[in-house]
Amino acid sequence: MKAVVWHGPRDVRVADDVEEPELLTPRDAIVRVTCAAICGTDLHPYRGELDGFRSGTILGHEFCGVVERVGEGCGALQPGDRVFASDVIACGRCTACERGMHYQCDERTLFGYGEVAGPYVPGGQAELVRVPFADVVLCRIPDGLSDEQAVFAADVLSTGFTAAERADVRAGQTVAVVGCGPVGLCAVMSARLMGAAQVLAIDPERSRRDAARALGATPVAGRDGIADRRAEWSDGQEVDAVIEAVGADAALTDALAVVRPRGTVVVVGSHGSTGFSLSTVDAFDRELTLRFAVGDPIAVRDRLVALLSAGRLDPAVLISHRLPLDDAVDAYRAFDRREATKVLLLPGDGAHAPTTKEDDGAP
Amino acid sequence: MKAVVWHGPRDVRVADDVEEPELLTPRDAIVRVTCAAICGTDLHPYRGELDGFRSGTILGHEFCGVVERVGEGCGALQPGDRVFASDVIACGRCTACERGMHYQCDERTLFGYGEVAGPYVPGGQAELVRVPFADVVLCRIPDGLSDEQAVFAADVLSTGFTAAERADVRAGQTVAVVGCGPVGLCAVMSARLMGAAQVLAIDPERSRRDAARALGATPVAGRDGIADRRAEWSDGQEVDAVIEAVGADAALTDALAVVRPRGTVVVVGSHGSTGFSLSTVDAFDRELTLRFAVGDPIAVRDRLVALLSAGRLDPAVLISHRLPLDDAVDAYRAFDRREATKVLLLPGDGAHAPTTKEDDGAP
Amino acid sequence: MKAVVWHGPRDVRVADDVEEPELLTPRDAIVRVTCAAICGTDLHPYRGELDGFRSGTILGHEFCGVVERVGEGCGALQPGDRVFASDVIACGRCTACERGMHYQCDERTLFGYGEVAGPYVPGGQAELVRVPFADVVLCRIPDGLSDEQAVFAADVLSTGFTAAERADVRAGQTVAVVGCGPVGLCAVMSARLMGAAQVLAIDPERSRRDAARALGATPVAGRDGIADRRAEWSDGQEVDAVIEAVGADAALTDALAVVRPRGTVVVVGSHGSTGFSLSTVDAFDRELTLRFAVGDPIAVRDRLVALLSAGRLDPAVLISHRLPLDDAVDAYRAFDRREATKVLLLPGDGAHAPTTKEDDGAP
Amino acid sequence: MKAVVWHGPRDVRVADDVEEPELLTPRDAIVRVTCAAICGTDLHPYRGELDGFRSGTILGHEFCGVVERVGEGCGALQPGDRVFASDVIACGRCTACERGMHYQCDERTLFGYGEVAGPYVPGGQAELVRVPFADVVLCRIPDGLSDEQAVFAADVLSTGFTAAERADVRAGQTVAVVGCGPVGLCAVMSARLMGAAQVLAIDPERSRRDAARALGATPVAGRDGIADRRAEWSDGQEVDAVIEAVGADAALTDALAVVRPRGTVVVVGSHGSTGFSLSTVDAFDRELTLRFAVGDPIAVRDRLVALLSAGRLDPAVLISHRLPLDDAVDAYRAFDRREATKVLLLPGDGAHAPTTKEDDGAP
Repeated sequence: MKAVVWHGPRDVRVADDVEEPELLTPRDAIVRVTCAAICGTDLHPYRGELDGFRSGTILGHEFCGVVERVGEGCGALQPGDRVFASDVIACGRCTACERGMHYQCDERTLFGYGEVAGPYVPGGQAELVRVPFADVVLCRIPDGLSDEQAVFAADVLSTGFTAAERADVRAGQTVAVVGCGPVGLCAVMSARLMGAAQVLAIDPERSRRDAARALGATPVAGRDGIADRRAEWSDGQEVDAVIEAVGADAALTDALAVVRPRGTVVVVGSHGSTGFSLSTVDAFDRELTLRFAVGDPIAVRDRLVALLSAGRLDPAVLISHRLPLDDAVDAYRAFDRREATKVLLLPGDGAHAPTTKEDDGAP
Repeated sequence: MKAVVWHGPRDVRVADDVEEPELLTPRDAIVRVTCAAICGTDLHPYRGELDGFRSGTILGHEFCGVVERVGEGCGALQPGDRVFASDVIACGRCTACERGMHYQCDERTLFGYGEVAGPYVPGGQAELVRVPFADVVLCRIPDGLSDEQAVFAADVLSTGFTAAERADVRAGQTVAVVGCGPVGLCAVMSARLMGAAQVLAIDPERSRRDAARALGATPVAGRDGIADRRAEWSDGQEVDAVIEAVGADAALTDALAVVRPRGTVVVVGSHGSTGFSLSTVDAFDRELTLRFAVGDPIAVRDRLVALLSAGRLDPAVLISHRLPLDDAVDAYRAFDRREATKVLLLPGDGAHAPTTKEDDGAP
Repeated sequence: MKAVVWHGPRDVRVADDVEEPELLTPRDAIVRVTCAAICGTDLHPYRGELDGFRSGTILGHEFCGVVERVGEGCGALQPGDRVFASDVIACGRCTACERGMHYQCDERTLFGYGEVAGPYVPGGQAELVRVPFADVVLCRIPDGLSDEQAVFAADVLSTGFTAAERADVRAGQTVAVVGCGPVGLCAVMSARLMGAAQVLAIDPERSRRDAARALGATPVAGRDGIADRRAEWSDGQEVDAVIEAVGADAALTDALAVVRPRGTVVVVGSHGSTGFSLSTVDAFDRELTLRFAVGDPIAVRDRLVALLSAGRLDPAVLISHRLPLDDAVDAYRAFDRREATKVLLLPGDGAHAPTTKEDDGAP
Repeated sequence: MKAVVWHGPRDVRVADDVEEPELLTPRDAIVRVTCAAICGTDLHPYRGELDGFRSGTILGHEFCGVVERVGEGCGALQPGDRVFASDVIACGRCTACERGMHYQCDERTLFGYGEVAGPYVPGGQAELVRVPFADVVLCRIPDGLSDEQAVFAADVLSTGFTAAERADVRAGQTVAVVGCGPVGLCAVMSARLMGAAQVLAIDPERSRRDAARALGATPVAGRDGIADRRAEWSDGQEVDAVIEAVGADAALTDALAVVRPRGTVVVVGSHGSTGFSLSTVDAFDRELTLRFAVGDPIAVRDRLVALLSAGRLDPAVLISHRLPLDDAVDAYRAFDRREATKVLLLPGDGAHAPTTKEDDGAP
């Protein structure tokens, strides 16, 4: 079968002789992928930023498709079911899972992420993918919800939504989002959805701020001395909560600078720093809360499916490219250069082309 | 001055020789009213449903205007300030107030409500009104927010918003609103604002359901056997929370019938029953929560003002009539017959006509 | 084997020729019972208050023992494990269970309760008992925790603890408990544990009030006009939350009468009424919350085991009788006459006698 | 009058010719001090760690006494009232105060703390003290509650209690307290009070651990490699929340190392660091929450008074010395050398000697 395979930094190839996956345990399912997305997190291996990432890794943790085969322990799941996966693979039965903390599962790993995040499980930028703990990891897509909307619930939208929930956004508050890449834009949507009176979208790049503005946010040019320039952008309003969706020390510094006393900063950007310099004297004086949150698709997907089905969230506006799987090399290159917001790779032959609501045969 | 005075059941008159109010305590202010609304609660005395309601009562607890005079203890409040009042009058300093429970204030009363709800304070359907505890009861209207939007924050919108907040609506949930009068419609708006995936609007009258539909709700024909007809309206979805906005036993029965196990019913309809028949065996088996909530404008107004200013809530769509104060008799009659949704009475002479956003000289 | 069998109102017999249970599904386990308690709920069938209760029913839903055999789908459970059961039988995998609402499980039933609460599953007042969904329903007892402490976590302590948690008791508040039977006394312990400054124990019977006093509560003679006599018992203190642990209309009336405005009444008494007369006008004016809560041993048992092991809760003080299973007929009679607080039935032959902390060979 | 005056590092003197305080505003009160405590925070100026601390400062922010005179705007406060003060001085009327965030008050300052924390207000280690915003800052001491219990509510107990509350301690959880000085010991008491199954008391000094053990905690020798030695002290139990009561980078590092995934670290130790090195990669992977909390006596005092009056908290066990005000120099020296846990200074002449419960004439 075809699959997107990592061979080294900026060396990603589409192989067409990859061995097809097999059921290894009773809780495995095999899914025929109809739609797989490239995520910002995929750029870490692409750029060679992850030590120990293994040549031969099949990439991709955002995907949906149709169930092809199931083991005996997959509950009600059936061949033919349209499904999307959670990027976080979790057993659903350990103490952490019972508490709804799937990222802390004893057997936690991610699709397509080498052995950096747990045992290697080949990813979903492929024609077929094996899904462990399929009764927990897969979620059925209801009729009327298109694949290309559902695929956002696999990671990026779940992450933005989790961020807004863990920020305890209350209707009428002001929320700032630092970093307006796809996760940040999903956080903007989610904070609006939860009733923020105003969402400030902070990013140094105009194009990203424009994307946030189109979603109803107030754009704020990011960076140097942002707190000092408060008068320019705040309209006298305090910032009740900040979502840091970059994963860089500078972004976290900005987030802490703009939040009001007793406010909350939620970090959903994936950080690599072991030595962020935190002013405890300032954080104490302003009684801040700093919360680190990983998106948990399993925990929020029922509500996300309801919201997507009702049209209350429309992440598909973020899609800039819909390409056949064969074009994955170009797609990664464009995404790396920020020439693409969100790229969908479509492994299917047309029989499984993503349904869109308008059935406009989008790609 | 002119004022709307209650003389008996369905006997409301506009008098023009009413004595002007005076400052009685240092925390009093006198407000020149620009816009006063008729509230569903006003129909209780209008219809003669309240024993002990006193002839001569000046009606009206939803109003905004311009501060004319202030006592010495009114804090930062100044003559000339544009303000709206809270319908609930509270001291702001007792234990209940400190805990944000203004309706439980030791000195709690309502404007224009006889001695049924506390000491008599003349209401705001008048040219001038005395506001006790003005530093607490009045809230400044920011530039850019029109009087006729702000007046909704005095009671009806605060009540619908409080209902949705006390129902702990979470993004992606399904909320039902029983009763689509003005309070119910404000609850629909608020539940949507807080991210409900679906809002079911339950009412026997088609016109009210249509109004709810226009706000994004799914209309459900109310009453007989609503729970039995679940398959027709639920789309398989459970109802996480119900807001009962009628204040009648039958409406509460419906609310309890449609909520899911472990769900919450919030009652904001003003009840008169001392013997509602509650099936404790059913409530226990389904582990329900039943919460009675009075709207608290003081507690939520900062966030409401932010939402109204940002255009995230637009209650002015509920306005069916804008009339001079002189037409109050007709206005009450139409409202009583349900020929009006929300009526604004405009005491001003034009100098104080309500600002609308589009400045379209609405009335 | 021996078991306690219900034949009709006040006709309970110890049979010694009952067929031994078999594993019926892979998630079943067979437990050899060391200790079974009689619960207040058992008095409903004993007194003939439950229509449709079937002759031949093996009673008992509070028990612990040693695992004898397990099916293949019981996870880590092993023969030889010391365990206690949850009285609520739940699958652990449906939507309700995933949300931690085990009493709302699609396959919910109770041990030893005829077909009133779900499919019949024979109870644990027997030498052996079959436990469905054993991986979910059973909980291991750590070394150092005696059987007779652990058995309280099966129902009565879980129920009192759940009540206090759902009342949102905050440290320093005043909590009243209406009804000082075993559940009420466990609620007293739990409210104290959670930091209530004062726990008022309301009961008409002096002996029960004395039991509550011994646990640190302030006794209040229950019933007629309790709210009117507030000055006598309240010490000026408002009652922030009330736990109704009787399950009778009169008790609920008292609970609603004593709670403060904006307070919460949690009902854990098992009600049989379909027409409790609720004053909605009063509940609205005081903005009350009324919450019905069934104890959920599965949801709270990890924390209960920690508390029991640490000696922070000591429900064994409630035990009035420790009797061999053969004495069950006398035990039921004494319990029915309120001559016993909590009775333990010990089916074992000594090899499995309940461990007590002091190893004092209690029975 | 007599007062304890700071002249420079380790140069504290008892002056007896200090001018008596006057009422400066209508909301001022003058209190005759009966009992003032030395707080760990007082060691910062004592040791010369605060730049800009002014010679001539009267020290002391923990005190109680009897109201001597009141301005006209002090509400119900009367001369003769026994009272304790909040160490945090707040107006009670700004937005921050209305939200219960008194430390963020626009006019926030502290007693006896130079101009480091706001405008200078002379402290309470004196015979008389002026209390601004006395209607908000002072709290009446009920009969039956001794001065020397009440004085703990002025700061140290409020701080420990706030810490436990903001850690969201749930009954049955495990809580660790890093640093067992007076604040840490109050946090130990409070976490126990709120139902922690186990409280781990982490401190390098044996005597402090012993004090914590006496309060029911499990002592753990602090510092090097504490997380690595988890097996020694954890008994397999995860640490749900950690309270950092030191205010040093090393203590915060320990706190972050021992908390479980998704756990919360609450910092109540007063930090001076502007560059704490935080591993965001670890905090993200374990999804931690880090919350900075300043004690807020005004927010919690009603419940603290109830708990102290009911004997559910007994901080007086921490008192190691009761000395006349004249001995303040020795007292500071002993406290600085850690030869004292908690020192009470008693300015009175006997007429105002602190009441103890047993009336044992303690000092």
